[in-house]
Amino acid sequence: MKAQRLKLEPLTAEAFSPYGDVIQRKGVIPEIINTGRTQKYADLARIDTNGGGTSIHLYRSQAAILPFLIERMERHPLGSQSFVPLHRGPFPVIVAPPGDSPDIQAIRGFISNGEQGVSFHKGVWHHSQISLDGVCDYLVIDRKGPEANCQDWVLERRLFIDGV
Amino acid sequence: MKAQRLKLEPLTAEAFSPYGDVIQRKGVIPEIINTGRTQKYADLARIDTNGGGTSIHLYRSQAAILPFLIERMERHPLGSQSFVPLHRGPFPVIVAPPGDSPDIQAIRGFISNGEQGVSFHKGVWHHSQISLDGVCDYLVIDRKGPEANCQDWVLERRLFIDGV
Repeated sequence: MKAQRLKLEPLTAEAFSPYGDVIQRKGVIPEIINTGRTQKYADLARIDTNGGGTSIHLYRSQAAILPFLIERMERHPLGSQSFVPLHRGPFPVIVAPPGDSPDIQAIRGFISNGEQGVSFHKGVWHHSQISLDGVCDYLVIDRKGPEANCQDWVLERRLFIDGV
Repeated sequence: MKAQRLKLEPLTAEAFSPYGDVIQRKGVIPEIINTGRTQKYADLARIDTNGGGTSIHLYRSQAAILPFLIERMERHPLGSQSFVPLHRGPFPVIVAPPGDSPDIQAIRGFISNGEQGVSFHKGVWHHSQISLDGVCDYLVIDRKGPEANCQDWVLERRLFIDGV
Protein backbone atom coordinates (compact mmCIF):
# COMPACT_ATOMS: atom_id res chain seq x y z
CA MET A 1 0.00 0.00 0.00
CA LYS A 2 1.22 3.43 -0.90
CA ALA A 3 2.48 5.54 1.98
CA GLN A 4 0.37 8.54 2.85
CA ARG A 5 1.73 11.99 3.51
CA LEU A 6 1.52 13.16 7.13
CA LYS A 7 1.11 16.91 7.35
CA LEU A 8 3.10 18.61 10.12
CA GLU A 9 1.06 20.98 12.28
CA PRO A 10 2.46 23.88 14.30
CA LEU A 11 3.32 22.73 17.83
CA THR A 12 1.07 24.38 20.41
CA ALA A 13 0.51 23.48 24.06
CA GLU A 14 -3.20 23.01 23.44
CA ALA A 15 -2.92 20.77 20.38
CA PHE A 16 -0.16 18.70 22.00
CA SER A 17 -1.87 18.32 25.39
CA PRO A 18 -3.26 14.79 24.76
CA TYR A 19 0.31 13.59 24.16
CA GLY A 20 2.46 15.59 26.53
CA ASP A 21 3.83 19.01 27.38
CA VAL A 22 5.42 21.68 25.22
CA ILE A 23 8.51 23.05 26.98
CA GLN A 24 8.38 26.75 26.21
CA ARG A 25 8.14 30.18 27.83
CA LYS A 26 5.04 31.13 25.84
CA GLY A 27 1.91 31.40 27.97
CA VAL A 28 3.82 31.09 31.26
CA ILE A 29 4.16 33.95 33.75
CA PRO A 30 7.71 33.82 35.12
CA GLU A 31 8.93 34.22 38.68
CA ILE A 32 11.67 36.81 39.13
CA ILE A 33 14.75 35.39 40.89
CA ASN A 34 18.50 36.07 41.24
CA THR A 35 17.87 39.62 42.51
CA GLY A 36 16.05 40.53 39.33
CA ARG A 37 18.51 39.13 36.79
CA THR A 38 16.52 35.99 35.92
CA GLN A 39 13.01 35.09 34.84
CA LYS A 40 12.15 31.56 35.94
CA TYR A 41 9.53 29.75 33.86
CA ALA A 42 8.87 27.03 36.39
CA ASP A 43 7.95 23.38 36.16
CA LEU A 44 7.20 23.17 32.46
CA ALA A 45 6.70 19.44 32.05
CA ARG A 46 5.30 16.55 34.03
CA ILE A 47 8.46 14.49 34.51
CA ASP A 48 7.11 11.06 35.46
CA THR A 49 9.56 8.33 36.43
CA ASN A 50 7.10 5.96 38.06
CA GLY A 51 9.24 5.34 41.14
CA GLY A 52 12.50 5.20 39.18
CA GLY A 53 15.24 7.77 38.93
CA THR A 54 15.82 10.49 36.36
CA SER A 55 18.50 10.38 33.64
CA ILE A 56 19.73 13.10 31.33
CA HIS A 57 21.39 12.43 27.99
CA LEU A 58 22.78 14.37 25.07
CA TYR A 59 21.65 13.22 21.61
CA ARG A 60 23.62 14.27 18.55
CA SER A 61 21.65 13.47 15.40
CA GLN A 62 22.07 13.59 11.66
CA ALA A 63 19.19 14.96 9.65
CA ALA A 64 16.84 12.43 8.11
CA ILE A 65 16.69 12.16 4.32
CA LEU A 66 13.37 13.49 3.06
CA PRO A 67 10.82 12.21 2.31
CA PHE A 68 11.14 10.21 5.55
CA LEU A 69 9.02 7.08 6.10
CA ILE A 70 7.21 6.64 9.41
CA GLU A 71 7.39 2.86 9.67
CA ARG A 72 7.32 2.25 13.41
CA MET A 73 6.41 3.89 16.66
CA GLU A 74 7.59 3.35 20.24
CA ARG A 75 6.38 4.07 23.74
CA HIS A 76 7.81 4.06 27.23
CA PRO A 77 5.34 2.43 29.61
CA LEU A 78 7.21 3.46 32.77
CA GLY A 79 7.98 7.11 32.26
CA SER A 80 7.86 10.38 30.39
CA GLN A 81 10.56 11.33 27.88
CA SER A 82 11.54 14.95 27.20
CA PHE A 83 13.50 16.49 24.31
CA VAL A 84 14.91 20.02 24.38
CA PRO A 85 16.65 21.21 21.18
CA LEU A 86 20.10 22.67 21.83
CA HIS A 87 20.68 23.48 18.15
CA ARG A 88 17.59 25.71 18.29
CA GLY A 89 16.22 24.52 14.96
CA PRO A 90 12.82 23.07 13.96
CA PHE A 91 12.24 19.33 14.34
CA PRO A 92 9.23 17.07 13.76
CA VAL A 93 7.34 15.34 16.57
CA ILE A 94 5.20 12.35 15.55
CA VAL A 95 2.70 10.97 18.08
CA ALA A 96 -0.29 8.70 18.59
CA PRO A 97 -2.48 8.30 21.70
CA PRO A 98 -1.64 5.73 24.39
CA GLY A 99 -3.15 2.29 23.87
CA ASP A 100 -2.09 -1.29 23.15
CA SER A 101 -0.87 -0.28 19.70
CA PRO A 102 -0.60 2.99 17.81
CA ASP A 103 -3.84 3.88 16.01
CA ILE A 104 -2.57 4.73 12.54
CA GLN A 105 -5.62 6.87 11.83
CA ALA A 106 -4.81 8.95 14.89
CA ILE A 107 -1.12 9.61 14.19
CA ARG A 108 -0.32 13.33 14.19
CA GLY A 109 2.80 15.22 13.27
CA PHE A 110 3.87 18.50 14.84
CA ILE A 111 6.79 20.78 14.12
CA SER A 112 8.72 22.50 16.90
CA ASN A 113 9.72 26.07 16.15
CA GLY A 114 13.26 25.28 17.32
CA GLU A 115 12.87 26.88 20.73
CA GLN A 116 10.14 24.52 21.84
CA GLY A 117 10.93 21.24 23.53
CA VAL A 118 8.46 18.43 24.10
CA SER A 119 7.82 15.94 26.86
CA PHE A 120 5.91 12.80 25.95
CA HIS A 121 3.64 11.57 28.71
CA LYS A 122 4.18 8.01 29.91
CA GLY A 123 2.82 5.50 27.41
CA VAL A 124 2.25 7.90 24.52
CA TRP A 125 3.24 6.38 21.17
CA HIS A 126 5.81 8.45 19.30
CA HIS A 127 8.35 8.11 16.57
CA SER A 128 12.00 8.11 17.57
CA GLN A 129 13.68 11.52 17.39
CA ILE A 130 13.86 12.96 13.84
CA SER A 131 16.03 15.91 12.76
CA LEU A 132 15.62 17.99 9.64
CA ASP A 133 18.80 19.89 8.95
CA GLY A 134 22.48 19.23 9.54
CA VAL A 135 23.79 18.03 12.89
CA CYS A 136 21.25 18.58 15.66
CA ASP A 137 21.73 18.37 19.42
CA TYR A 138 19.12 17.63 22.08
CA LEU A 139 19.01 17.31 25.83
CA VAL A 140 16.89 14.28 26.70
CA ILE A 141 15.36 13.58 30.12
CA ASP A 142 13.85 10.21 30.90
CA ARG A 143 13.45 7.44 33.44
CA LYS A 144 16.38 5.63 34.99
CA GLY A 145 15.83 2.09 36.19
CA PRO A 146 16.55 -1.57 35.44
CA GLU A 147 13.10 -2.39 34.02
CA ALA A 148 12.51 -2.63 30.25
CA ASN A 149 10.88 0.63 29.23
CA CYS A 150 10.62 0.71 25.45
CA GLN A 151 8.00 -0.99 23.29
CA ASP A 152 8.36 -0.88 19.54
CA TRP A 153 5.54 -1.31 16.99
CA VAL A 154 5.86 -1.77 13.25
CA LEU A 155 3.01 0.06 11.53
CA GLU A 156 0.76 -1.94 9.23
CA ARG A 157 0.49 1.10 6.96
CA ARG A 158 3.21 3.63 6.48
CA LEU A 159 3.16 7.40 6.42
CA PHE A 160 5.77 9.83 5.24
CA ILE A 161 6.82 13.35 6.09
CA ASP A 162 8.52 15.61 3.60
CA GLY A 163 9.58 18.55 5.73
CA VAL A 164 8.00 21.68 7.11
CA MET B 1 37.72 44.53 53.65
CA LYS B 2 38.58 44.81 50.00
CA ALA B 3 37.03 42.17 47.75
CA GLN B 4 39.46 39.71 46.21
CA ARG B 5 39.44 38.69 42.59
CA LEU B 6 38.32 35.11 41.89
CA LYS B 7 40.02 33.68 38.83
CA LEU B 8 37.79 31.57 36.56
CA GLU B 9 39.27 28.19 35.62
CA PRO B 10 38.35 26.16 32.54
CA LEU B 11 35.52 23.76 33.35
CA THR B 12 36.67 20.15 33.18
CA ALA B 13 34.97 17.00 34.46
CA GLU B 14 37.98 16.20 36.64
CA ALA B 15 38.36 19.61 38.27
CA PHE B 16 34.60 19.89 38.82
CA SER B 17 34.13 16.35 40.20
CA PRO B 18 34.11 17.36 43.92
CA TYR B 19 31.15 19.63 43.20
CA GLY B 20 29.13 17.87 40.55
CA ASP B 21 29.00 16.69 36.96
CA VAL B 22 29.88 18.44 33.72
CA ILE B 23 27.15 17.75 31.15
CA GLN B 24 29.11 17.32 27.92
CA ARG B 25 29.87 14.84 25.17
CA LYS B 26 33.63 15.05 25.72
CA GLY B 27 35.14 11.87 27.11
CA VAL B 28 31.92 9.86 26.68
CA ILE B 29 31.59 7.01 24.18
CA PRO B 30 28.11 7.26 22.65
CA GLU B 31 25.60 4.53 21.94
CA ILE B 32 24.27 4.49 18.40
CA ILE B 33 20.47 4.59 18.25
CA ASN B 34 17.65 5.56 15.85
CA THR B 35 18.93 3.19 13.13
CA GLY B 36 22.25 4.99 13.03
CA ARG B 37 21.01 8.57 12.88
CA THR B 38 21.72 9.44 16.54
CA GLN B 39 24.62 9.25 18.95
CA LYS B 40 23.36 8.97 22.52
CA TYR B 41 25.68 10.24 25.24
CA ALA B 42 23.89 8.54 28.09
CA ASP B 43 23.26 9.42 31.71
CA LEU B 44 25.56 12.41 32.02
CA ALA B 45 24.68 13.63 35.50
CA ARG B 46 23.65 12.17 38.83
CA ILE B 47 20.13 13.60 39.11
CA ASP B 48 19.37 13.22 42.82
CA THR B 49 15.90 14.12 44.07
CA ASN B 50 16.07 12.39 47.43
CA GLY B 51 12.67 10.74 47.12
CA GLY B 52 11.01 13.79 45.57
CA GLY B 53 10.04 14.38 41.96
CA THR B 54 11.91 16.07 39.14
CA SER B 55 11.11 19.53 37.78
CA ILE B 56 12.35 21.26 34.66
CA HIS B 57 12.40 25.02 34.22
CA LEU B 58 13.53 27.57 31.66
CA TYR B 59 15.61 30.46 33.00
CA ARG B 60 15.98 33.63 30.92
CA SER B 61 18.73 35.81 32.38
CA GLN B 62 20.26 39.20 31.84
CA ALA B 63 24.03 39.41 31.92
CA ALA B 64 25.61 40.55 35.17
CA ILE B 65 27.45 43.87 35.23
CA LEU B 66 31.19 43.29 35.60
CA PRO B 67 33.03 43.28 37.91
CA PHE B 68 30.42 41.16 39.70
CA LEU B 69 30.54 40.73 43.48
CA ILE B 70 30.19 37.25 44.95
CA GLU B 71 28.41 38.17 48.20
CA ARG B 72 26.39 35.06 49.00
CA MET B 73 26.17 31.38 48.21
CA GLU B 74 23.31 28.89 48.34
CA ARG B 75 22.83 25.14 48.52
CA HIS B 76 20.02 22.67 48.04
CA PRO B 77 20.15 20.08 50.84
CA LEU B 78 17.57 17.76 49.23
CA GLY B 79 18.67 17.49 45.64
CA SER B 80 20.98 18.13 42.72
CA GLN B 81 20.46 21.12 40.43
CA SER B 82 21.47 21.08 36.75
CA PHE B 83 21.96 23.93 34.27
CA VAL B 84 22.23 23.43 30.50
CA PRO B 85 22.90 26.57 28.43
CA LEU B 86 20.48 26.97 25.53
CA HIS B 87 22.13 30.18 24.30
CA ARG B 88 25.35 28.19 23.86
CA GLY B 89 27.59 30.87 25.35
CA PRO B 90 30.14 30.81 28.20
CA PHE B 91 28.90 31.32 31.77
CA PRO B 92 30.64 31.27 35.17
CA VAL B 93 30.05 28.56 37.77
CA ILE B 94 31.02 29.46 41.36
CA VAL B 95 31.20 26.66 43.93
CA ALA B 96 32.37 25.66 47.40
CA PRO B 97 32.42 22.21 49.01
CA PRO B 98 29.43 20.91 51.01
CA GLY B 99 29.48 21.74 54.72
CA ASP B 100 27.58 23.81 57.28
CA SER B 101 28.72 27.02 55.60
CA PRO B 102 30.72 27.85 52.47
CA ASP B 103 34.47 27.87 53.15
CA ILE B 104 35.50 31.17 51.59
CA GLN B 105 39.09 29.97 51.14
CA ALA B 106 37.80 27.02 49.13
CA ILE B 107 35.52 28.91 46.73
CA ARG B 108 36.38 28.16 43.10
CA GLY B 109 35.17 29.66 39.87
CA PHE B 110 34.87 27.78 36.59
CA ILE B 111 33.84 28.94 33.14
CA SER B 112 31.67 26.78 30.88
CA ASN B 113 32.67 26.82 27.23
CA GLY B 114 29.04 27.42 26.27
CA GLU B 115 28.33 23.84 25.29
CA GLN B 116 28.98 22.46 28.75
CA GLY B 117 26.23 22.24 31.32
CA VAL B 118 26.76 21.56 35.01
CA SER B 119 24.92 19.61 37.66
CA PHE B 120 25.62 20.53 41.28
CA HIS B 121 25.54 17.59 43.63
CA LYS B 122 23.13 17.75 46.53
CA GLY B 123 24.38 20.12 49.24
CA VAL B 124 27.20 21.73 47.24
CA TRP B 125 27.44 25.47 47.87
CA HIS B 126 27.18 27.54 44.70
CA HIS B 127 26.39 31.03 43.58
CA SER B 128 23.06 31.60 41.88
CA GLN B 129 23.21 31.46 38.10
CA ILE B 130 25.36 34.21 36.51
CA SER B 131 25.37 35.18 32.82
CA LEU B 132 28.04 37.15 31.01
CA ASP B 133 26.64 38.46 27.76
CA GLY B 134 23.23 39.60 26.58
CA VAL B 135 20.11 37.55 27.20
CA CYS B 136 20.96 33.96 28.14
CA ASP B 137 18.67 30.94 28.34
CA TYR B 138 19.11 27.79 30.41
CA LEU B 139 17.25 24.57 30.98
CA VAL B 140 17.27 23.84 34.71
CA ILE B 141 16.53 20.44 36.27
CA ASP B 142 15.98 20.11 40.01
CA ARG B 143 13.96 18.53 42.77
CA LYS B 144 10.20 18.87 43.02
CA GLY B 145 8.65 18.60 46.46
CA PRO B 146 6.98 20.59 49.24
CA GLU B 147 10.05 20.70 51.54
CA ALA B 148 12.23 23.80 51.80
CA ASN B 149 15.30 23.12 49.68
CA CYS B 150 17.37 26.29 49.49
CA GLN B 151 19.79 27.62 52.12
CA ASP B 152 21.36 31.00 51.61
CA TRP B 153 24.62 32.22 53.20
CA VAL B 154 26.00 35.76 53.20
CA LEU B 155 29.79 35.60 52.88
CA GLU B 156 31.86 37.28 55.58
CA ARG B 157 34.38 38.30 52.90
CA ARG B 158 33.50 39.08 49.34
CA LEU B 159 35.08 38.03 46.08
CA PHE B 160 34.57 39.41 42.63
CA ILE B 161 34.76 38.08 39.09
CA ASP B 162 35.54 40.28 36.14
CA GLY B 163 34.85 37.99 33.21
CA VAL B 164 36.64 35.26 31.34
